[in-house]
Amino acid sequence: MVDVSDKAVTSRRAVAQAVVTTTPHVMSLLVAGELPKGEALPVARVAGILGAKQTPSLIPLCHPLPISGASVEFEPGETSLRIVASVKTTGVTGVEMEALTAVTVAALTVYDMIKAVDRGAVIGDVCVLEKSGGASGEWSRG
Amino acid sequence: MVDVSDKAVTSRRAVAQAVVTTTPHVMSLLVAGELPKGEALPVARVAGILGAKQTPSLIPLCHPLPISGASVEFEPGETSLRIVASVKTTGVTGVEMEALTAVTVAALTVYDMIKAVDRGAVIGDVCVLEKSGGASGEWSRG
Amino acid sequence: MVDVSDKAVTSRRAVAQAVVTTTPHVMSLLVAGELPKGEALPVARVAGILGAKQTPSLIPLCHPLPISGASVEFEPGETSLRIVASVKTTGVTGVEMEALTAVTVAALTVYDMIKAVDRGAVIGDVCVLEKSGGASGEWSRG
Amino acid sequence: MVDVSDKAVTSRRAVAQAVVTTTPHVMSLLVAGELPKGEALPVARVAGILGAKQTPSLIPLCHPLPISGASVEFEPGETSLRIVASVKTTGVTGVEMEALTAVTVAALTVYDMIKAVDRGAVIGDVCVLEKSGGASGEWSRG
Amino acid sequence: MVDVSDKAVTSRRAVAQAVVTTTPHVMSLLVAGELPKGEALPVARVAGILGAKQTPSLIPLCHPLPISGASVEFEPGETSLRIVASVKTTGVTGVEMEALTAVTVAALTVYDMIKAVDRGAVIGDVCVLEKSGGASGEWSRG
Amino acid sequence: MVDVSDKAVTSRRAVAQAVVTTTPHVMSLLVAGELPKGEALPVARVAGILGAKQTPSLIPLCHPLPISGASVEFEPGETSLRIVASVKTTGVTGVEMEALTAVTVAALTVYDMIKAVDRGAVIGDVCVLEKSGGASGEWSRG
Repeated sequence: MVDVSDKAVTSRRAVAQAVVTTTPHVMSLLVAGELPKGEALPVARVAGILGAKQTPSLIPLCHPLPISGASVEFEPGETSLRIVASVKTTGVTGVEMEALTAVTVAALTVYDMIKAVDRGAVIGDVCVLEKSGGASGEWSRG
Repeated sequence: MVDVSDKAVTSRRAVAQAVVTTTPHVMSLLVAGELPKGEALPVARVAGILGAKQTPSLIPLCHPLPISGASVEFEPGETSLRIVASVKTTGVTGVEMEALTAVTVAALTVYDMIKAVDRGAVIGDVCVLEKSGGASGEWSRG
Repeated sequence: MVDVSDKAVTSRRAVAQAVVTTTPHVMSLLVAGELPKGEALPVARVAGILGAKQTPSLIPLCHPLPISGASVEFEPGETSLRIVASVKTTGVTGVEMEALTAVTVAALTVYDMIKAVDRGAVIGDVCVLEKSGGASGEWSRG
Repeated sequence: MVDVSDKAVTSRRAVAQAVVTTTPHVMSLLVAGELPKGEALPVARVAGILGAKQTPSLIPLCHPLPISGASVEFEPGETSLRIVASVKTTGVTGVEMEALTAVTVAALTVYDMIKAVDRGAVIGDVCVLEKSGGASGEWSRG
Repeated sequence: MVDVSDKAVTSRRAVAQAVVTTTPHVMSLLVAGELPKGEALPVARVAGILGAKQTPSLIPLCHPLPISGASVEFEPGETSLRIVASVKTTGVTGVEMEALTAVTVAALTVYDMIKAVDRGAVIGDVCVLEKSGGASGEWSRG
Repeated sequence: MVDVSDKAVTSRRAVAQAVVTTTPHVMSLLVAGELPKGEALPVARVAGILGAKQTPSLIPLCHPLPISGASVEFEPGETSLRIVASVKTTGVTGVEMEALTAVTVAALTVYDMIKAVDRGAVIGDVCVLEKSGGASGEWSRG
């Protein structure tokens, strides 16, 4: 774990996404809250936020950071569900990993809740969308 | 968490994959073990195996299962790294979620180790490849 | 942690409750999903189920058990919210602690979500309602 | 998890309580350290302190905080045990949830150690007694 | 994590030890319960038992096992404290790692509680004393 | 957990060691990466770093600290492996426990990976080598 003792404490933010691709039928069940295991989105939101807080326990070289805010939002499409997480901290390193962990755990939770009706669902397009704060300043995916 | 008390204890196995897409330059650094944070693959393998064991703590409606075996393997390509995890159990539910969590945590760990040289790397194609054991028998992605 | 190696593996179930007492105004906000932090019940349900799985990490002398089912239900009243959890296992010890941990973590989560509007809310009546399986057979609170 | 990035870092403290109600016989065993599972209070104290540190992993929308002090004390009565926890931090949000989690986990641990002799014990009166620091200043239960 | 799917489920037990070496003065404070941080042994016992249950989260290639019993005992000498842990399971692999983790976490907890009065204390002689059950049968340190 | 609210936030560092003693044959297998379970040192390094981050969850009276850097290094000898961990923080208490936990978890991981070929291996000489920062200033083992 690289030494970040001398980095400045600044306000930092990162936004990441993940996309779960499934069938139109499953999307309609998901949006209607009629999946066999119940409503998926509230469960996935909680899982994503708790997951963000587990980041330094899961990713070996990640520094522990005091997360000061986290949100997980969903954009349902016809055959896919886009998950976007935004995480903030006032700390010495960025929170990309926390935002990525949030969307990933949320996406895995969605898969867990739809797998009885679509075992072939795929999680993709997991990436950082925006990042601000710290030495590298503002960055957003072109 | 659905009641699985009456399901049979059988030998079960699941195989899942994730693909990290980056630049040829980063792939050459990764394969040569010359990334700024050091060798990525051994770290990602350990993270994936430990991650599989955290599945029921991360995925709310997942049943705890006694994992009896887990492996994480890597297939480096020119611009991407394919990660394949195989998980086994002797239990009452399948281990797809454990295999998916293993590849996902391994992929996030790889991203963490390459983000200093490629912030734009993307994790995709996260899916179950094969599944055996239990009431639904053998299944493999077509 | 007492030795339970020689106890029989049987199907076991426990039901526990907790009651959060607050004001009529807060109860109406909670039922309408209009609390400042958002909808409380789905968050508390997920927290309770995840909490049940953390029981042996929280309660020092509790044996780890493979939970085979868990549910958390809510009964809103005029000035209180009753939380009931039911947990099942096929194992060597009972699941009272898991059911109690589920209702307690769910109740704490509700408190966390209403504390901005009622700091004085109280959690009480936390007890086991029913228990079945194992050497002691059926039991229910008289 | 609401955004607390702009809140001031101040010294904060919260005190909470829980009460375990049981029989006079069990209270005499507990005070004498003669319960079947051994001395309950030192075990419950450690569980409460460790529990306080797990608060952000258990309560989904709770911010992680650097706890700077925590104590758990016991006041045995004739038919009940009062548990009082005090938690301090220097941070951006209060530590009520940490104090409540400490007393709750301590109370559950006491229940676990007396349940062989009193399955009907009840945990109640779980509430915040005092709170200081932060924008809302001093508060104590009337 | 090697595949143990085909190993027999048997009753298994392991005993391990650790020795903390310090000064006669510190040992007298420890035995009298007069260390600055309070009584060390009950805290170390709880930490050791909880630590045993965390073994598969800490040791990457360790299989999760349902621990059916665990005890941690102390033998104070003039300048050292011997810690002995015994762990049992009914499972497919041995519990040496659980017993070793128990004594190690207990020893670290003792160090934490004496470090204000003896920063130079040393933990040593950490080893498995006995092991029974499984394909390799009885074994004890010669 | 003693109150450290009034201690100064300073840059702190601790270095600790552990020594695993085994046979020359096992050391040669370990150095060559030919142990039955695979390469031990990368696995033990990751386990040690993740273990350091778990310190406040394992050691009851340890304060949570934002670790700002951690490294685990190995010095193989003829019949023993020396493990040295260095941990840094910018915080209110020292990081001796984090450094000791890192070397201990790394040593247990090494034991786990060699136990199939040397059940009698011993972990010893676990101690703090150096400490800096905080009220007590520089200290090193004489």
